[in-house]
Amino acid sequence: MKFELGKNKLNGFKVEIPSWGFSDSGTRFHVFHAPGAARNVFERIEDAAQVNKYTGAVSGVAIHIPWDKVEDWKSVKEFAKERDLKIGSVNPNLFQDEDYKFGSLTNSNEKIRQKAIKHVLECIDIMRNTGSKVLSLWLPDGTNYPGQGDFARRHSLLFESLKEIYDALDDDMTLFIEYKFFEPAFYHMDTPDWGTAYALVKDLGEKAKVIIDLGHHAHGTNIEYIVSILSSRGKLGGFHFNSRKYADDDLTVGSMNPYELFLIFVELNKFFDLSKTPPEVALVIDQSMNIKPKIKALIQSIENLQITYLKSLFVDFSSLQECQKANDVIGSEEILKDAFLTDVRPILKEWRSDLGIPLNALEAFEKSGYEEKIAKERG
Amino acid sequence: MKFELGKNKLNGFKVEIPSWGFSDSGTRFHVFHAPGAARNVFERIEDAAQVNKYTGAVSGVAIHIPWDKVEDWKSVKEFAKERDLKIGSVNPNLFQDEDYKFGSLTNSNEKIRQKAIKHVLECIDIMRNTGSKVLSLWLPDGTNYPGQGDFARRHSLLFESLKEIYDALDDDMTLFIEYKFFEPAFYHMDTPDWGTAYALVKDLGEKAKVIIDLGHHAHGTNIEYIVSILSSRGKLGGFHFNSRKYADDDLTVGSMNPYELFLIFVELNKFFDLSKTPPEVALVIDQSMNIKPKIKALIQSIENLQITYLKSLFVDFSSLQECQKANDVIGSEEILKDAFLTDVRPILKEWRSDLGIPLNALEAFEKSGYEEKIAKERG
Amino acid sequence: MKFELGKNKLNGFKVEIPSWGFSDSGTRFHVFHAPGAARNVFERIEDAAQVNKYTGAVSGVAIHIPWDKVEDWKSVKEFAKERDLKIGSVNPNLFQDEDYKFGSLTNSNEKIRQKAIKHVLECIDIMRNTGSKVLSLWLPDGTNYPGQGDFARRHSLLFESLKEIYDALDDDMTLFIEYKFFEPAFYHMDTPDWGTAYALVKDLGEKAKVIIDLGHHAHGTNIEYIVSILSSRGKLGGFHFNSRKYADDDLTVGSMNPYELFLIFVELNKFFDLSKTPPEVALVIDQSMNIKPKIKALIQSIENLQITYLKSLFVDFSSLQECQKANDVIGSEEILKDAFLTDVRPILKEWRSDLGIPLNALEAFEKSGYEEKIAKERG
Amino acid sequence: MKFELGKNKLNGFKVEIPSWGFSDSGTRFHVFHAPGAARNVFERIEDAAQVNKYTGAVSGVAIHIPWDKVEDWKSVKEFAKERDLKIGSVNPNLFQDEDYKFGSLTNSNEKIRQKAIKHVLECIDIMRNTGSKVLSLWLPDGTNYPGQGDFARRHSLLFESLKEIYDALDDDMTLFIEYKFFEPAFYHMDTPDWGTAYALVKDLGEKAKVIIDLGHHAHGTNIEYIVSILSSRGKLGGFHFNSRKYADDDLTVGSMNPYELFLIFVELNKFFDLSKTPPEVALVIDQSMNIKPKIKALIQSIENLQITYLKSLFVDFSSLQECQKANDVIGSEEILKDAFLTDVRPILKEWRSDLGIPLNALEAFEKSGYEEKIAKERG
Repeated sequence: MKFELGKNKLNGFKVEIPSWGFSDSGTRFHVFHAPGAARNVFERIEDAAQVNKYTGAVSGVAIHIPWDKVEDWKSVKEFAKERDLKIGSVNPNLFQDEDYKFGSLTNSNEKIRQKAIKHVLECIDIMRNTGSKVLSLWLPDGTNYPGQGDFARRHSLLFESLKEIYDALDDDMTLFIEYKFFEPAFYHMDTPDWGTAYALVKDLGEKAKVIIDLGHHAHGTNIEYIVSILSSRGKLGGFHFNSRKYADDDLTVGSMNPYELFLIFVELNKFFDLSKTPPEVALVIDQSMNIKPKIKALIQSIENLQITYLKSLFVDFSSLQECQKANDVIGSEEILKDAFLTDVRPILKEWRSDLGIPLNALEAFEKSGYEEKIAKERG
Repeated sequence: MKFELGKNKLNGFKVEIPSWGFSDSGTRFHVFHAPGAARNVFERIEDAAQVNKYTGAVSGVAIHIPWDKVEDWKSVKEFAKERDLKIGSVNPNLFQDEDYKFGSLTNSNEKIRQKAIKHVLECIDIMRNTGSKVLSLWLPDGTNYPGQGDFARRHSLLFESLKEIYDALDDDMTLFIEYKFFEPAFYHMDTPDWGTAYALVKDLGEKAKVIIDLGHHAHGTNIEYIVSILSSRGKLGGFHFNSRKYADDDLTVGSMNPYELFLIFVELNKFFDLSKTPPEVALVIDQSMNIKPKIKALIQSIENLQITYLKSLFVDFSSLQECQKANDVIGSEEILKDAFLTDVRPILKEWRSDLGIPLNALEAFEKSGYEEKIAKERG
Repeated sequence: MKFELGKNKLNGFKVEIPSWGFSDSGTRFHVFHAPGAARNVFERIEDAAQVNKYTGAVSGVAIHIPWDKVEDWKSVKEFAKERDLKIGSVNPNLFQDEDYKFGSLTNSNEKIRQKAIKHVLECIDIMRNTGSKVLSLWLPDGTNYPGQGDFARRHSLLFESLKEIYDALDDDMTLFIEYKFFEPAFYHMDTPDWGTAYALVKDLGEKAKVIIDLGHHAHGTNIEYIVSILSSRGKLGGFHFNSRKYADDDLTVGSMNPYELFLIFVELNKFFDLSKTPPEVALVIDQSMNIKPKIKALIQSIENLQITYLKSLFVDFSSLQECQKANDVIGSEEILKDAFLTDVRPILKEWRSDLGIPLNALEAFEKSGYEEKIAKERG
Repeated sequence: MKFELGKNKLNGFKVEIPSWGFSDSGTRFHVFHAPGAARNVFERIEDAAQVNKYTGAVSGVAIHIPWDKVEDWKSVKEFAKERDLKIGSVNPNLFQDEDYKFGSLTNSNEKIRQKAIKHVLECIDIMRNTGSKVLSLWLPDGTNYPGQGDFARRHSLLFESLKEIYDALDDDMTLFIEYKFFEPAFYHMDTPDWGTAYALVKDLGEKAKVIIDLGHHAHGTNIEYIVSILSSRGKLGGFHFNSRKYADDDLTVGSMNPYELFLIFVELNKFFDLSKTPPEVALVIDQSMNIKPKIKALIQSIENLQITYLKSLFVDFSSLQECQKANDVIGSEEILKDAFLTDVRPILKEWRSDLGIPLNALEAFEKSGYEEKIAKERG
């Protein structure tokens, strides 16, 4: 029964993947070059289509402006559609301009602040042209030294900027605000935690929600608790999936603590049906695959998510509630562990078989010769 | 000029000290016994009066129920008044009862939850009888294992409980909600961060505010930022002052990173006049002086706070704003450092001299023989 | 094949459990009383025998002096033997005496330091009388404030004390030195990390080794790396198994990040055969089961260890080495994940069936009525 | 007396500054361009001379190979000498080559490992040609995912590589091994902590020592303790000075917790005379001044170090020892605090006046027009 349910749920369980996942990435020390790295939005969509071909679980491609910028957005939308993909969330870039050295949406220089707002408004236009419904805003603003900025003034400027952006949204659009504990700023971030993001989206209105990036927390933070509180307060917008051991390592989702990822899905299942289209909550991968081949890393990541999702469906919620009522700590825990320990890979395999996609996605992709092909073509 | 200002400000700068600071304390491994440890609320107030005698900076004594419980609260109020002290915040105890093993205000057992609420309501009565205006609520509730509790249900029960408590407050009373990252619960806390506390006080209403305990944060957390955001949103109620290097170590305030404490005062000065009576924001010491003699440790703590406050008054805010406008990072920082590097102890000394209290408080107290006296009397 | 191997390996895979695991425990805020908590070493061994009855995987009972102290150690040894148990490691207590407020083996007061040494030497005598071969030394010494102690002097005193202890060991005895990041000391610990412990055991000689307690590390620490380096340098003595999310939470082993525990076993398998008797490396549970029933918590813990051990046996090391040689990052990772995702519970079940112990240990124990019996008997 | 002593000590207190401190730097998100950033080793030495001109406290310039590589090293040495500077430590680069994607000195590909060794040996040659006596080795090697590498094998390869390097050192040369908690690798680092570095230098021999970078530790780590233990064991080589709030933020030394820096100097004074030439322990600044003007940031950093050093000289060690002996925790702490609270800037000013350098270094440098000059000249 769970087996069939699992397969049915997988049909609708779709993940958004990031266009920037197909380009070279690295650390401040070095960016390693991957042969065949995509050079423009079309190549990125092409690569995304490969991920979908071998997983059947890609809903769309998140784009980053200006990295993916083109003149003719219709052609991009069309290009994606031909490959059964949508343009997902639109991600403004507020960190790669010399002007933003001391802030973008919080900059006390009015000209620069307006420039930042204008850039985000342009992204809303791109949403209209691509059919995207989510503006996903990560604010890198912050300061590196005590005294450098006035927290409260910056907070107030931030709200003003966000208000202008929020008011420009169409009715069916959503603004996601992403928080991050630190980096690129090293003394304070203007949206360092879910509390700040929550306070802002609460003040902004219904179309504003919080997006959780799994790598953006202090050590020890109980992320599944944040998932629960934001969800129960109607303010969880979605996820940037990745993993970390130290800071914002942007490693493959599920690679460091798969049980934590499982617990996050357990919480999500209480509030959302993750197999619905359009999604009730955005599931976006955001990783920096510095030393892994990009396409394979994304195939692997999606499998990690599918496996974790399937495991989470095995939680017997009614027994769990009974155990909780009885304060049976061990019993409650064992119910979760029972689901987590279940090997759900046979379900995934059968679902793949039903769908006519290769049973072993990584192997099949490797044998397809696509990597060699793009390495040659893209130089 | 700053010298005179400093002295004037010191006149009104008053700190609340905790009655529980005069009792034995320790870790889960051992509670070391201090000779002369106070055994009841009267002895605690007596000791607090000693701290005031040598510092001139104690506003009142925070009490903890049931540790300080007596039948005749009027006599306590009177006893304090005779020693120029007030009864400060009233702190309910929701952690030392077998019934609270699985939660107090969040307990799914309605009887236990009502018992916890009733205890807090009793504390409000004690406030009426002692003239206290602040109900300072620290919630130890949480779970130790995944599955043990339902986060959202507990959050909803918590709000219900708080609403009942809030509604029982007199108009001139304030409810402080304290958050804590972890301990005594080790998987999740029901109010783990300022975000949760803020969401709750925001929903409760104007009489509810957040209290910041300096030791209740994840590593790396920028506390002065939280001070600023809560203050600018009208939701900062006060502080539990202490210090930490690792977890909630409850060490002497200012003993681990005095610069961080200074930066907190710099933020506070932007929103509050800390020398006003009644205080615009509550300044309460909350430490666990396991291996230091209690009274001396509190004298030392108050001096740390006075010195830090004085330093913060030396910040040249108008120059700072100019530097900030010019994005002069080094200039801004140097203004803060200039204040921090200033040796303000001569101001403190002169102020003491004016007041007729000993110049060297620790030494004078030591010589007074009070410690020996209580060691003998209290056994 | 792996299935059979797994069963065979389980035969020899034995875990030591702590006598103190059967007594009441808690945090500095409260110690919750568990009905039926064991009151002396005999009751603790009796409870340990229950854990063994339902898991078949208990090698012995670690004892703590003076908590387990009796006059007639032979009777304890005999009592254990009758229940198929050995007396495992002997653990001195250097933290529960007023004299140790400022240090035990590092105390600058020579009398107190000698008292501490003498206590440890007495533990060596107890080892002789009980047949224990491991002296497991956790040093709680440290300071709470800068200036309180002289690090180097304390380090030198520590080595002197350890030398005296080391020299008193019989040839077939081993001294384990345990490190801990913090608590009960909050500014510095005298053995805060594996580096200090390693430097000490290296200087002491072959009979001294390091024991790793999983909860005694800074956030982010890669424990499996420490396992590897200590093992390859011949200095890993054993483990104190537990789990943590925040500090030294002493939660059930495997409850917070089972993948990390798996990776530790993967490392261990490279250096040791964990199914051998006597063990090449000590596997000891050390938990503080504040809110879980003690015996059940230990049964659960042993199952967690057995399951993790079984999973680790599924790692295909020769393929792994090939992938590593080829720098196939994804391939290498998938080999580990493949093992981790395998549901090994059928092996455990069949092994139990072969052994004639109940398939569902927790359930069988619960139904046995033992908990009710001791609750009544022990009051 | 302390005043005069302070001035005398300042005469010999010299800091090494990094050539790479004068080039553009940033995060993985963006490298902000500073006008006038030095483009080669000569411009870097020129800038370093400016820092020395305004501080009188620069001993030499640490160089980084290949960033500073030239054909004619004699000319570099001469160029520095004409500006009263020496070539300080030589720093090999093992992270900016595609070949090192999976390791340098630990690479299982023998060709790449030999290439890395050869690069370091070339650095030893450069030491001979420039008169440098310190080879300062930071190893970026590590892995990003479980399974990617074999810890023990890598550790063994690392030792082999280091042995080859160590054996190539002249008798008056020292090899520093630097450890780092994480980054650029995100799962494990091959030298993550002082313990690993200590084990390696201990095995290598007398010419090998550990260098401490202040930003390379887990949260909560007591660095002054590491200073003490390494010093008392004769294995502390020196420092990379900087500051951090979160990860390896590479902020201005002393900017986040000046008290911690002070405590480090207090430890150092117990083992070394920091005013001696040649230095007994290397004091090198290593910062990433992303948003501060480079030369001013280094002037500021040196002032921070001078002020902290001066404060540390005010510690009354004989009183401290007495307090420690008496277990007077508060007394001991107050002795440290008394030194820390002392405003030593008048000493620095008078010393500057005696030396004929500007009293306000930052201001004087700003007015000198040097920044504008290089901005114009270097484009």
